Amino acid sequence: MKYDVLPLTRLVEQFERLPGIGKKSAQRLAFHVLDMPKEKAQQFANTILEAHEKIKKCAVCQNLTDQEVCQICQDQQRDRSIICVVEDPRDVIAIERTQEYTGLYHVLHGLISPMNGVGPDQLSVRELLERMKDETVGEVIMATNPTVEGEATAMYLARLLKPMNVKVTRLAYGIPVGGNLEYADEVTLYRAIEGRSEI
Amino acid sequence: MKYDVLPLTRLVEQFERLPGIGKKSAQRLAFHVLDMPKEKAQQFANTILEAHEKIKKCAVCQNLTDQEVCQICQDQQRDRSIICVVEDPRDVIAIERTQEYTGLYHVLHGLISPMNGVGPDQLSVRELLERMKDETVGEVIMATNPTVEGEATAMYLARLLKPMNVKVTRLAYGIPVGGNLEYADEVTLYRAIEGRSEI
Repeated sequence: MKYDVLPLTRLVEQFERLPGIGKKSAQRLAFHVLDMPKEKAQQFANTILEAHEKIKKCAVCQNLTDQEVCQICQDQQRDRSIICVVEDPRDVIAIERTQEYTGLYHVLHGLISPMNGVGPDQLSVRELLERMKDETVGEVIMATNPTVEGEATAMYLARLLKPMNVKVTRLAYGIPVGGNLEYADEVTLYRAIEGRSEI
Repeated sequence: MKYDVLPLTRLVEQFERLPGIGKKSAQRLAFHVLDMPKEKAQQFANTILEAHEKIKKCAVCQNLTDQEVCQICQDQQRDRSIICVVEDPRDVIAIERTQEYTGLYHVLHGLISPMNGVGPDQLSVRELLERMKDETVGEVIMATNPTVEGEATAMYLARLLKPMNVKVTRLAYGIPVGGNLEYADEVTLYRAIEGRSEI
C-alpha cells in the first residue's frame, strides 16, 4: 500500500517542477517550507503572487519593472545615445554588474529560432525599431549570446537597423579573462586572434 | 546608482533563504516563477499555504498527515507490535521505501541535544511512553541517526522503555551495501566486525 499525505506530495511536486531541483532537493525544500512559521510561509506565497501581479515590461526597453517605465530608462544620468540589445532580463543584471556600461538597454525576451517557431514577431523587435525614431540613438550594441540563435538574431537586427543610419556593434569574442589558452576551443581562439588589438 | 525591481528582489530573497539555494539559483528560480503562467504561480502559492494549513501531526505517531490519525497508523494490515522510533518524517519516507518494514512508527521531531537546548520535553517522548500502555507493543526499534545526538537519544529512550517490559532494539551498524572496506572509517569497520553474523 502506498501512503500519501496529499498536501505534502503536491508541495514536493511543485518544487520538483522548478529548474535544477531534483526529487531529493524538492523534498528537502518542501519540508523546509513546512517547518517555517506560518507567517513566513504566508510571506513566501504572497511574494510569489505579488511578483506576478506587479512586475511587467518597461514600456520603453521591455525590461522587467514594477513601474510604467523602468529605472534605467528613467535615469537621466545614463547615456541615451547607446542601446544594448540583450536576450533576457538576466543579461541586463549581468551587464549592470560590470558597472562600466552607462547606456540604455533593449530586452528582446528571446531569440529568433525557427526550430522552436520563434520569429521576430514574438520578440520585442517592433519596439526596438520604434526607439530608432529618436534621433539621439547613435549606436546599438548586439549583446545576444554567442550561440547560433544569438548570432542569427544579431545579424537579422543589424540588417534592419543599418539602413536607419545607426552604428551597429557586436560584443567582442575572445578568450575569457582568467581563462587558459590550452582549454579554449578553436573557434574562440580563432576569434581572439582575429580580434587582436595593439598594446 | 543601484536599480531595483522590488517585487523581483524580494522573490529572489525568498528563494535564497531556502536550504541549498545560492544567489544564482535563487535568481534562476525567481525568473522561472515569473515566467510561469499566472494560474501556475497562483497554484504554487496556494500549495504552500494549503500544506501549512492542512498538514499536522498524527495524534498517535506524530508523523505528518492531513488526517487526525495518519494512514500508516490506520492501516490494520501493519504489524502493531513493533514501533520504529525516528527523528524526522523524512526518515519514515526512507524506511517505507525499503518496502520491508511493516510495523508502525513514532516520530520524535528532533533529537536530544543539550547544546541546542533541546531536551526530552521538546520531543514527542511523552506520546511514545503513552503508546506503551497498549499491551500489543512488543518491540521498539531505535532508528535514530548514528550521530552523537542520535545515540544519546536512543540510549535515553531505551532506559525509559526497558522497565516497561518491552524489547528495545537498535539498527545494525556496519559497512553500507555496495561500499568499500578500504574507505570505511574505523568505527564503522569495528562495529561491522563486532556485529558479524554466521553465513
